[in-house]
Amino acid sequence: MPAEPYLLTPGPLTTSRTVKEAMLRDWGSRDGAFIALNARVRARLVELAGGDAAAFAAVPVQGSGTFAVEAMIGTLVPRDGKLLVLVNGAYGTRIVRIAQVVGRAVAAIEAAEDQPVSPDALERALAADSAITHVAVVQCETTSGILNPVEAVAEVTARHGRALLIDAMSAFGALPLDARRVPFEAVAASSNKCLEGVPGMGFVIVRRDALERAKGNAHSLSLDLHDQARGFEANAQWRFTPPTHVLAAFDQALAEHAAEGGVEGRGARYAANCRILVEGMRAMGFRTLLPDHLQAPVIVTFRMPADPAFDFPRFYDQLRERGFVIYPGKLTVADSFRIGCIGRLGAPEMQAAVEAVRATLAGMAVASGAP
Amino acid sequence: MPAEPYLLTPGPLTTSRTVKEAMLRDWGSRDGAFIALNARVRARLVELAGGDAAAFAAVPVQGSGTFAVEAMIGTLVPRDGKLLVLVNGAYGTRIVRIAQVVGRAVAAIEAAEDQPVSPDALERALAADSAITHVAVVQCETTSGILNPVEAVAEVTARHGRALLIDAMSAFGALPLDARRVPFEAVAASSNKCLEGVPGMGFVIVRRDALERAKGNAHSLSLDLHDQARGFEANAQWRFTPPTHVLAAFDQALAEHAAEGGVEGRGARYAANCRILVEGMRAMGFRTLLPDHLQAPVIVTFRMPADPAFDFPRFYDQLRERGFVIYPGKLTVADSFRIGCIGRLGAPEMQAAVEAVRATLAGMAVASGAP
Ligand SMILES: Cc1ncc(COP(=O)(O)O)c(C=O)c1O
Ligand SMILES: Cc1ncc(COP(=O)(O)O)c(C=O)c1O
Repeated sequence: MPAEPYLLTPGPLTTSRTVKEAMLRDWGSRDGAFIALNARVRARLVELAGGDAAAFAAVPVQGSGTFAVEAMIGTLVPRDGKLLVLVNGAYGTRIVRIAQVVGRAVAAIEAAEDQPVSPDALERALAADSAITHVAVVQCETTSGILNPVEAVAEVTARHGRALLIDAMSAFGALPLDARRVPFEAVAASSNKCLEGVPGMGFVIVRRDALERAKGNAHSLSLDLHDQARGFEANAQWRFTPPTHVLAAFDQALAEHAAEGGVEGRGARYAANCRILVEGMRAMGFRTLLPDHLQAPVIVTFRMPADPAFDFPRFYDQLRERGFVIYPGKLTVADSFRIGCIGRLGAPEMQAAVEAVRATLAGMAVASGAP
Repeated sequence: MPAEPYLLTPGPLTTSRTVKEAMLRDWGSRDGAFIALNARVRARLVELAGGDAAAFAAVPVQGSGTFAVEAMIGTLVPRDGKLLVLVNGAYGTRIVRIAQVVGRAVAAIEAAEDQPVSPDALERALAADSAITHVAVVQCETTSGILNPVEAVAEVTARHGRALLIDAMSAFGALPLDARRVPFEAVAASSNKCLEGVPGMGFVIVRRDALERAKGNAHSLSLDLHDQARGFEANAQWRFTPPTHVLAAFDQALAEHAAEGGVEGRGARYAANCRILVEGMRAMGFRTLLPDHLQAPVIVTFRMPADPAFDFPRFYDQLRERGFVIYPGKLTVADSFRIGCIGRLGAPEMQAAVEAVRATLAGMAVASGAP
């Protein structure tokens, strides 16, 4: 078994050696060098979202991506506001749950996990319920790997004069999301998905005017995005101890992202990864849950093979021994499993992963991956 | 200027090379090897607190130390409970603020920043107010570096049948806190202080029966300690993406802590560091804010020198050029500054720090550090 397998998961994922090596020093969190690093990271994040620095701020948040999403919901939806969530998977459902726990009125429009969320249904819901102040949508619903129509959702939301909150966790940095074309109030994502940093922080890119209005809204001290932003504006420092090593790795990851050609370059590599994976798997009989036009190049859901010789735990273990960690759980959506195609890997690694699947099927005497 | 100065701060602090090198690989968060690492870390934390694994659980929390404190308060103090906080510095004040933000009834007993909190005052307050369900205290109040009488506070609290919540952030792992002698309901601390890991996670060591009762209390999804614990019990995994590299570094840090002789060995090194610092500084005329018997060997507050040639920003910058980053702010408590003595450094480094202070004073033509 290789010492360090490739991680074909929705995260944590494989990062470059140089990103990890950026963690080989200790930073004083209030020291000038670290303050400059933070300013660089924050400015770059706004840029990546196509945001104007006068209108948008990037507010990093300690913790995992969920912490950033919770900070976004709890801070930006007013206590007397109402959130409508477009749900077609576990991460949309999680936003509903966050709203409930933090005590905000919330409604959901649910679609099946293999269907994109519906801008038409949103149109009707907004026309029918004037109490709704905010709409939330997941750009790539990592549950299935489906790409949601964020531009259309943004257009409908803006036309109805409501504010849009986007969970772009598994898409940001690889799939386009540009404030100049997609009107949003805030977008939450993390250091550890398509930007290829290590896990330990999320961030929210948010309109400054919305942040201003949000003073005093938050349900939490640690997850108060307004306060956190004010801290950065006041002295360019984090309110509470930042994950300094994670930040240093993220700074390096952003430099490598730029060197690869930014969102376009990163997206192109992932699209090629996804194509190699899907074509290779289909050649063995596997079937994807989603048609290609709904598939984001992030994570692919495959239907479970029908061959009774196929045993998923053995499949997982043997792939791991061959150097590839896939997502270890089955899904509730259909009978299926998932393989990711993001992180620091390219065509040779994806081809090797397909070969590892082929060898594993042969070892299990599974004739075909057909469901 | 040395590439990497020593950090004489209350954290982030200097960690060992081997702790940082533990971050040079990527871990799948749901993979067996990482699950085993987490189990090892959690078991060791309970042990360090002198806790019986049947009665106590260690619940890691993503984010900074404040996140762990907020998770402890928001989860364990019931919605109809009342928290009494013993305050003698900024971290006690922060607990009061957390209770207010999360909507719990809260009262405080305030002492001056150079005075320990008072068990007698606590005794009177508990006798007078039967609505108080929980008491919170900071073991080492890092604002001044003062050691609070946690054992006496625990004794009074237990005698009155109330539950004790301890913020041991800057003490855990170096100053004794033993569940067999100090009855507490929960203790919060972090990876990055005396245990010498890197920042990015906190943890709460908590009585299992209290956790059970706390179901549904929390004000937050991300900071719900009950849910987080249930996740670990169910499948030994984190509910939301863990900071995998921070965990790997923490696992290594705990091994190095054990190799140094655990709490006793670590505490002895810090005590020696503190003695070298205080004696060296006193020899130059500096005066500590606290008398020695109240001084925790964590961070030392020195009164600002009276000599008009002393300029604190220049002092900070020149110490940094000599390889030592101290805490860059003045304090409100008296006119003072602080130097830490925790992290991966020992007698030679503390002696060098004292020499750097001496050279810096000479360079500024300051005759004496006397206030
Ligand atoms: C779309 C989406 N939202 C939210 C999250 C939650 O992120 P985390 O696990 O870092 O809390 C994920 C994680 O995969 C995600 O894919
Ligand atoms: C006693 C105490 N409590 C809480 C904290 C807050 O920890 P963090 O800065 O990691 O949020 C600190 C940090 O120094 C501390 O010393």
